[in-house]
Amino acid sequence: MIPDRATVEKIEYQLRKIAFLLRRQGRRILTRFDLTPPQFDALQFLIYHDGLTMGELTQRLYLASSTVTDLIQRMEKGELVKRVRDPRDRRVVRLYVQPRAHEVLEAVLEERRRFLARVLGELSPEVVGMLEASLEKLHDQMGAALEKEEERQP
Amino acid sequence: MIPDRATVEKIEYQLRKIAFLLRRQGRRILTRFDLTPPQFDALQFLIYHDGLTMGELTQRLYLASSTVTDLIQRMEKGELVKRVRDPRDRRVVRLYVQPRAHEVLEAVLEERRRFLARVLGELSPEVVGMLEASLEKLHDQMGAALEKEEERQP
Repeated sequence: MIPDRATVEKIEYQLRKIAFLLRRQGRRILTRFDLTPPQFDALQFLIYHDGLTMGELTQRLYLASSTVTDLIQRMEKGELVKRVRDPRDRRVVRLYVQPRAHEVLEAVLEERRRFLARVLGELSPEVVGMLEASLEKLHDQMGAALEKEEERQP
Repeated sequence: MIPDRATVEKIEYQLRKIAFLLRRQGRRILTRFDLTPPQFDALQFLIYHDGLTMGELTQRLYLASSTVTDLIQRMEKGELVKRVRDPRDRRVVRLYVQPRAHEVLEAVLEERRRFLARVLGELSPEVVGMLEASLEKLHDQMGAALEKEEERQP
């Protein structure tokens, strides 16, 4: 059953604002590691898909190819990733994360958990319980719906 | 009362994944409007803060100044923003959104609501009710906590 429009609008708005605040808070943390938000997006992609080619990363991030080249150069200087020519096809450059990438991701997430713990601590246990019970269901359903859309029109 | 670590980790994980999926879905929509995600971030900032200077936007987005210059040039070509020299101080360039910016934002949000309506339609009314009741409280509390942090160490 599709909920009424006011409910959809309200939940869309709240999710957008929460994502926006988390990004804003994240940006503050990232500056400590001398990272920009697109670099952090790229870092997360690469951690989950190690060995991605430059072309694949560009496609995944929906950014201009020159932007991604620039971004990866800076990340290589920061010892987060390494560019390696594919031995089977020398035209292909693959990206591999360095140990420091995992350290940075963990530090950023830990800082985020600390922030969230403080926020949740101000809410009633009942509200925290509702979040715990409903966000997982929303996430699962959203993942399934997005996969269906991407199958239909990739 | 601070919730236990497992609860914090779980809620942090779910929120991060939901934000990630919404961004992934958003990117698919943005390509239709020939926009990249950082351009869309900038667009949202400018709609809410019309007349921002280039310097202020760069600071808000935590991006390199050259990246923002490039991004704004493309958005000017796409008739989303206009660069105007401040008549009181000719060294300052201010950014003003064009009518097309509002059209694009509305179209992107409408597409997102359509997607979310489909997702929520697959959940039980009880879960939708929990989301409606808890997300607003989380958002309010998060905004307050972030403001406090930014006051302490801007």
